[in-house]
Amino acid sequence: MSAPAVTGRADLRGDVAGELAAVFARSTDAAQRHGAHFARLWQLAGVHAQGGKLVRPLLLLETYDALRGSGAYTGPARPTVVRIAAAVEALHFAFLLHDDVIDGDLIRRGRPNLIGDMISEAPLTGAARHWAQAGGILAGDLLLSAAHQMFARADVDAHARIRLLDLLEETIHETTAGELADVGLGAGVIEPDLPSVLAMTRRKTAAYTFQLPLRAAAVLAGAPGGLETALGAAGAHLGLAYQLQDDLLSTFGDAAQHGKDPLSDLREGKQTALICFARMTSAWAGIAPHLGDPELTADDADRVRRLLTECGAERFVRGLVDDERAAFAEALDGDAVIPPRVRRVLTDVAAALEGRCA
Amino acid sequence: MSAPAVTGRADLRGDVAGELAAVFARSTDAAQRHGAHFARLWQLAGVHAQGGKLVRPLLLLETYDALRGSGAYTGPARPTVVRIAAAVEALHFAFLLHDDVIDGDLIRRGRPNLIGDMISEAPLTGAARHWAQAGGILAGDLLLSAAHQMFARADVDAHARIRLLDLLEETIHETTAGELADVGLGAGVIEPDLPSVLAMTRRKTAAYTFQLPLRAAAVLAGAPGGLETALGAAGAHLGLAYQLQDDLLSTFGDAAQHGKDPLSDLREGKQTALICFARMTSAWAGIAPHLGDPELTADDADRVRRLLTECGAERFVRGLVDDERAAFAEALDGDAVIPPRVRRVLTDVAAALEGRCA
Repeated sequence: MSAPAVTGRADLRGDVAGELAAVFARSTDAAQRHGAHFARLWQLAGVHAQGGKLVRPLLLLETYDALRGSGAYTGPARPTVVRIAAAVEALHFAFLLHDDVIDGDLIRRGRPNLIGDMISEAPLTGAARHWAQAGGILAGDLLLSAAHQMFARADVDAHARIRLLDLLEETIHETTAGELADVGLGAGVIEPDLPSVLAMTRRKTAAYTFQLPLRAAAVLAGAPGGLETALGAAGAHLGLAYQLQDDLLSTFGDAAQHGKDPLSDLREGKQTALICFARMTSAWAGIAPHLGDPELTADDADRVRRLLTECGAERFVRGLVDDERAAFAEALDGDAVIPPRVRRVLTDVAAALEGRCA
Repeated sequence: MSAPAVTGRADLRGDVAGELAAVFARSTDAAQRHGAHFARLWQLAGVHAQGGKLVRPLLLLETYDALRGSGAYTGPARPTVVRIAAAVEALHFAFLLHDDVIDGDLIRRGRPNLIGDMISEAPLTGAARHWAQAGGILAGDLLLSAAHQMFARADVDAHARIRLLDLLEETIHETTAGELADVGLGAGVIEPDLPSVLAMTRRKTAAYTFQLPLRAAAVLAGAPGGLETALGAAGAHLGLAYQLQDDLLSTFGDAAQHGKDPLSDLREGKQTALICFARMTSAWAGIAPHLGDPELTADDADRVRRLLTECGAERFVRGLVDDERAAFAEALDGDAVIPPRVRRVLTDVAAALEGRCA
């Protein structure tokens, strides 16, 4: 999933980037005494972890500032909030690393990922892949551990710390369940029906990309549980709308404009809502042979795209996106506990996502 | 590494086993709402995580009780101590899971491991390995997360909690560095000289198996930093002695008595201190062709063993074990801050390890 721009505020971006840089500098430094290869692993992790758009920490900080700005809530010292925002990014990177190991991917954002870099740095080619895969698993463990450490050390009262730890635990369980389901759907272990695919999507993307930042902002601001729940519900709808639209862009979008490889989802045989719908139609006989074909040509892809449109799959998924957007708007407006400032921030984020569609 | 018996106290074993069972029962139960496959992953993790000898948590509890029994220290409520002991076991299992994924192992303790079980449960054989490997990575993540949650929620004062979190972080960094070095040595990325192999061994085994339980006991008992440091130093020597002796048993021990496969280290081509020493002798030409040979026969192994003895490698490593044992005894006796009761517990553990040699 590529990331939307959630803020124009350069100060927030600078705060998060600075905190992340400090975490990696400190860890890389401390790693020296455990050997040069271990220090290099931290260094590489730092390079790759700091290449993202910071959508999750920025969503957290924008929401937190809106909650504070509403005047009703207080919160801890600024560095504590920024550190939790950075922890959310560390968690994101831990998931990406293990996702890449599981999928055997060597490329991310069009460049070699950490595993790809370790392969090219290995002196011997024979065992380089094994070495690099171990590096991906272990770097993911280190980042997962770092995220926990940052949550656990948050300088907040005992009640807020337990709420943060509960939220982190719930998010990790839900995201892990989503990742397991994603692999199971791809491997044919789980039946790829629409409810399973939508549940996987919600778990794998909405939970940590939207619900975690929104709920963490509420907890840090000392907002009551009801507001945290309302923000979590809104985030679930926004997250699902976002991922479904991402699936549409990956198949039908302008590759030049969105930076997506228009063949990759089809070549991988990814089980999306589009594919689930198509499977129930007569177009399936023309689609199935191409799905998961690593040799898929641009012409094949054009034919599959046409079939996905003609059979109604595209329209169906655009309808799902609209439904989730409407449910998101309703969750915002229908719940009086969400302050107007916070609604505005979230509406802006939703609009930024919608803008990608144009 | 197989585990020594560190205690005859059935009450301690029951406490830890009960706490672990509660953690897995609660998580498996909560996992239901994230799907049947996720619940099954927790269930399998519980089955495999509870099959160990609990050497690390028992070492923690024995040491803690000895510190308390010395009369000088106090500590939190008993369930808090037991929970940290269980967290140490959860961490151990997280390491084992990722170790098995990295090494591609499907067997542990002579039976299918979690990955092996997931392969046999998968409905399709084609993608079963991919599915099961993902399960191993994700279950490791869940257990690593659980260990952090248990440390972070410890019902101790703020100072002790930070000390526990520092210890956990340091242990994970050191163990991860050891695992990375182990893979690097096996893959030929790291030169297998004696200092590198000994540093790897100390990091991979001594840090979390001996130093973590001893130091955690000190922190929980409210002992001063000097005592924690002294116990950590003693644990480092004991841990290295233990692992070196384990290497000797794996090569020269009585398979029937110790449950070791006498061919596995040689077949894997494991870089041990024995092998490092032999590489510097004229016996190497006779050993090298067999090291890492998956087809190694019992006769080949006998010849390699004879060469390892004749070239002085066996005697050299036995000498290293004696040196580390002596350094351990010196660390205990030379440091007046370690109470006599605690010394007795640790001396008993060392004697139990020595007993394996007989």
